[in-house]
Order: sequence, then structure tokens, then C-alpha cells
Amino acid sequence: VTSLLSPSELEQRLRAIGAERYHHLHPFHKLLHSGKLDRGQVQAWALNRYFYQSMIPVKDAAIMARMADPQLRRIWRQRIIDHDGESDSDGGIVRWLALTDGLGLDRNYVTSTRGVLPATRFAVEAYVHFVRERSLLEAIASSLTELFAPAIIAERVSGMLATYDFVSSETLAYFDKRLTQAPRDADFALDYVKSNARRPDQQEAALAALTFKCNVLWAQLDALHHAYVEPGHIPPGAFKPETSS
Amino acid sequence: VTSLLSPSELEQRLRAIGAERYHHLHPFHKLLHSGKLDRGQVQAWALNRYFYQSMIPVKDAAIMARMADPQLRRIWRQRIIDHDGESDSDGGIVRWLALTDGLGLDRNYVTSTRGVLPATRFAVEAYVHFVRERSLLEAIASSLTELFAPAIIAERVSGMLATYDFVSSETLAYFDKRLTQAPRDADFALDYVKSNARRPDQQEAALAALTFKCNVLWAQLDALHHAYVEPGHIPPGAFKPETSS
Repeated sequence: VTSLLSPSELEQRLRAIGAERYHHLHPFHKLLHSGKLDRGQVQAWALNRYFYQSMIPVKDAAIMARMADPQLRRIWRQRIIDHDGESDSDGGIVRWLALTDGLGLDRNYVTSTRGVLPATRFAVEAYVHFVRERSLLEAIASSLTELFAPAIIAERVSGMLATYDFVSSETLAYFDKRLTQAPRDADFALDYVKSNARRPDQQEAALAALTFKCNVLWAQLDALHHAYVEPGHIPPGAFKPETSS
Repeated sequence: VTSLLSPSELEQRLRAIGAERYHHLHPFHKLLHSGKLDRGQVQAWALNRYFYQSMIPVKDAAIMARMADPQLRRIWRQRIIDHDGESDSDGGIVRWLALTDGLGLDRNYVTSTRGVLPATRFAVEAYVHFVRERSLLEAIASSLTELFAPAIIAERVSGMLATYDFVSSETLAYFDKRLTQAPRDADFALDYVKSNARRPDQQEAALAALTFKCNVLWAQLDALHHAYVEPGHIPPGAFKPETSS
């Protein structure tokens, strides 16, 4: 960005990043949605993605800790409430555990995160560090991958239900909620970025933040693809599916 | 570790981690050392590893910033002097750039780090964050992969010189220096860890720190292997070798 974009031009540029770099384009997602993975590979995906899910409220708390405006914090805290719920039987993280339960993974093993790929951990922690260390504008802009989530979720749920006998609409309940939560969150964040990126360098930083976040998601699928689709590449200490999947 | 290990038992446990998890065991290293990679793949390795090299003094400065003892800082600062040199034409980072030059990569492109794999960046930054956030003992223990470096360096240099016409002993000069620097640094760090890990939980933390660091190195080679050995998996925005390699 060398000259100032209008808010709607900025939105176009943000959406163009999603069209090129969001992980709906990743080969692992295509395998997942089209029923080409076996149970062990879907387990590996759900197990690794659990670590991402579990860190989302930590990431949102780090963002909220930088907000001086109570009104802004009131809006942002809803994300944490959605993920953590009102009790141990409620909220997005527990709904994710319903999926790992349904896939036959031991819940203590999942929540210990012992079997998570180091590359998953590094990517997710890079996201948490990013929102702590960069400007609030960049931290909020990095959440804008949610703009692109509803399309992939619809595709994922229908594809997985149609093709895998080891998933059900109950175990995929996480995604139902996200279909309404993600657009609400993304609309707010998009308005914030469009209103607050008022200089070319701020607009550039917001675009770079969204690119960074797309890389965080993409790198997680690269790591899954390398470890669990191509034979013989599971790194030392990471989850090994049972061979009788 | 449930009961206290003697210093020599602790050393054995540390060395056992290297024997199982150091990246000399990674398939990408075997390809690199045995002449099985083409020039573009070796370029990708050198380009990504440049980012790791360039952050080592930042990592060491973060460690030094936590040392209250001038004597300890005097010893540790030698690592930074070795990497940064006395001028722009000296030191480990410049010697690494002699390698990327020799491989035909544009120096401005290399130092911009634009083409680096996101997974490389996440792994390297995880290392910098680790030494900032964990105890000084863990930060120092994470450097102990240098215990295992001399063997891999000797193998790497002889293997690469014997099999690639696009590398020379001049372009591999980086590794000559490391053959003496790495053991000196590792001996000090090993003595420090053996003397300062005096409780079972500290010994456990030191062992976990070395495992973490092995994961940092392993994940970098996983990312290279996935992107540049298996066709069609270079992530958006990362270095693309010219097809006429």
C-alpha cells in the first residue's frame, strides 16, 4: 500500500488475501472434506486442531488485555465466553472435545497436548505472540480469517457427514455454532480495521497481519499433511494412529 | 525424572535425547549429505537456515539479558561476537551468506527473509520466545544441541563437497569455525546445566528444554522436506526454485 485506500478498497484487498491464501485451498482440506482420509488421519487433524482451539481464548485474552476501552472489551469478551462456556460441559472447546471423543481419542491424552506436532505448537504460539507484540490494529486484523470461515465450515460438515461413518452431526456440533459466531465476530473486526487503519502504513500492517494469520493456518495443515499423509514422516514423540484404522 | 540424578546421569539422559531426536536422523539431512538434492533444494535449505542463523545472536542476547552475573555474561557474549563478527565482512552470519552467494541466491533476497517458509519462522521464533520466557537454566539447556553438532558438520561438509559441484570448501567455511566454536560453547553449557539443575523438577525442565530445541530443528527440516522434496507443496509466498536447476 503506497497511497491511502478507501475503506471499501481495503476490504477488497483483505478479501483478496483470503481468496489466495486461506486454508480452504490446502490439499489436506480437500482430502479431509472429500472423504479421502482414514480414521487415524482425521484423529490427527482433530487432535492437533484441539491445541489451536484451546489457545484461542488465551489469544483473545491477550488482545483484550491491550484494550483500554471498556466498550471494546465488552464486545471482545464474547469470544472468550463462546469458547470457554459457562461450565465444563459447555462452550467451543468442549464441543471440540466431543469431536475428539467421537473419533475415539482419549480425552486426557487430547487435553495433555502431548501428541501434538511441534510445528502445530510453534504456529499456534506464533499467533499468541503476534497479538501480544504487535499493535492492537494488527492483532484485530489477524482475526479476519473468520471472514472466510463460514464457506469452509459448510463444505466441511456436509463433506465429512457424507463420507465418514465415524463422524456424526453430534460430534460436528462445534461447527454449527461457528456458523453464526464467526460472521458476527468477523463483521465487528472488519469494521474496526476499516475505521482504524487510516494511514497507508497502518493499512499495510493490517494486510500483513491477515497474511500472517493465513500462514498460521496453512502451516498447521502442511505439518499434518507431511506427518500423516506421506508415510514415514511422523516426528519423534507425536501422535501415532493405530495401524488398524 | 522422579528422583534426583547425579550430574553424570543427567548428562547421559541429555545425550540420549540427542541420540533419538537430533536432526542428523531426519530424512532431509540424509538427502542433503548424500548428494540427492538438486541445486534448488539446497538453495531452499540455505535460504531458510539463514533465518535461523540470523536469529541466533538475538536469541543469545535474550539469554544474556537475563544473566545477573557479569562473569556469565562475559562467557555468553562470545557467542554473539562469533556470529556477528567485528565488521560486515566477518562472523558466522556473513559466512552463511557466503554459502547462499555461492549457491547463486541474491543476497538482498536472502537477508529480506521474504522467501522463508512460515514454518521456519514459527520454529525459530518459538526458540527466541522460549529463552525469554522460561528459566535461565532451561534457556541454557536448550542450547545443548551443540553437543551433537560436530558429528553432523563433519558428515555434512565431506558429503556436500564430494557430491555437489555447486558447493566448495570456501562456501562451506561457516562450518569450519563451528567445529571449534560449538564444542567450546556446548562444554560450558553442559557444565552449567549439570551444576545448576539440582532438583528433580529442574532436571526434568532441562531435559524438556533440550527436547524442545530438537523439535525446533526437526520441524525446520520437516517444513523443507514437505515444501521442496515432495512436489507441489510450496506454500503461498515462499521461495520457488528456478525449474532449470
